[in-house]
Amino acid sequence: MEEGMTLPTGAVQTIPARSGIAARVKKDQFIKVINTHGTQVVDAWAFNALDLTEWMSMEASRASFMKLAAAVGDTFVTNQRKPILTLVEDTSRCAHDTLMAPCDRWRYGLLGVEGYHDNCRDNLHSALANLGVVIRATPPSLNLFMNIPWTADGELAWGEPVSTPGSYVRFRAEMDLVVAFSACPQDILPINGVTGTTTDAHFSVE
Amino acid sequence: MEEGMTLPTGAVQTIPARSGIAARVKKDQFIKVINTHGTQVVDAWAFNALDLTEWMSMEASRASFMKLAAAVGDTFVTNQRKPILTLVEDTSRCAHDTLMAPCDRWRYGLLGVEGYHDNCRDNLHSALANLGVVIRATPPSLNLFMNIPWTADGELAWGEPVSTPGSYVRFRAEMDLVVAFSACPQDILPINGVTGTTTDAHFSVE
Repeated sequence: MEEGMTLPTGAVQTIPARSGIAARVKKDQFIKVINTHGTQVVDAWAFNALDLTEWMSMEASRASFMKLAAAVGDTFVTNQRKPILTLVEDTSRCAHDTLMAPCDRWRYGLLGVEGYHDNCRDNLHSALANLGVVIRATPPSLNLFMNIPWTADGELAWGEPVSTPGSYVRFRAEMDLVVAFSACPQDILPINGVTGTTTDAHFSVE
Repeated sequence: MEEGMTLPTGAVQTIPARSGIAARVKKDQFIKVINTHGTQVVDAWAFNALDLTEWMSMEASRASFMKLAAAVGDTFVTNQRKPILTLVEDTSRCAHDTLMAPCDRWRYGLLGVEGYHDNCRDNLHSALANLGVVIRATPPSLNLFMNIPWTADGELAWGEPVSTPGSYVRFRAEMDLVVAFSACPQDILPINGVTGTTTDAHFSVE
């Protein structure tokens, strides 16, 4: 896709397995992210198209909707507390994780991987580079379909997705955006279903 | 304090009410943060002294110790997954919040404040500037003594601190650091005890 190009309305785009893709979205458009094969975590980020230092903030969003995970009707906000994405529909039955960092090369090193491993952090920056966009930090990601259960004592665990093939989330863009998605290449822990499985996912802008 | 100066060992420094302070700390030194008056939230950040783009990451730390809040013995890690601060002692009985963004000017605007209000985000950057340090983003903060209870359903609330005057936390520095603290100026919500109260806190490096 050419730099700065807006997606054709409604076109379904592939988020290739273990890889990332970014797109420009206009205010009031809807973004649908589809868990095509049912068990793929998709890390998501959103940036103000006019100021790339303003991004969707998990820590400000939790303080806004006062939950660990958003429900339909909840709005994510930026690091300037402005509405950026509203969750308007969700057929996945998932509590989309807001707590965990996107995976990165160091994470895989700690998990015993030698040499390079695809990772969501690098996927984000590569996807943005394909749009001609550079950011100077890696914001915490919204981890779509990712199942991180918590206990009353605050213990966390790595769960498998509870979504089903073709289930999706739909967001309304509350400002002109750059969005980025990474089909998480985590194949050491079972967060993408049966350990070792990583698949494509899809999204559309309407 | 002069730029780059290391604190005299053991000297107790004031974190002035509604304000911030930063300091350089050597690997294996201990940092004690004291809730002098018992109900003051202290937002905390830590940066690799040799690379200020590497900072203590709440989202990577939760993924490391697998809890919403650290317990004694747990180690916070950086956005490169390296150990940075270990919680070695805690007399406060608090679950130090890792979930909420540091307060900022926009937050107070949403709370109905007109004009400028002191805030932890600006306190961070001002405190670092006093050390001659500039960072290009605002990392999520570790909110010491801040009481954000969660429910099994993932609902969050703004609680009052449960700490007592003089109670403290003690950390071991796992690398050479720049640390920054802000005595949270939140006087609209009751997170610093009785609404409207903001006080000094203190810290020392040993």
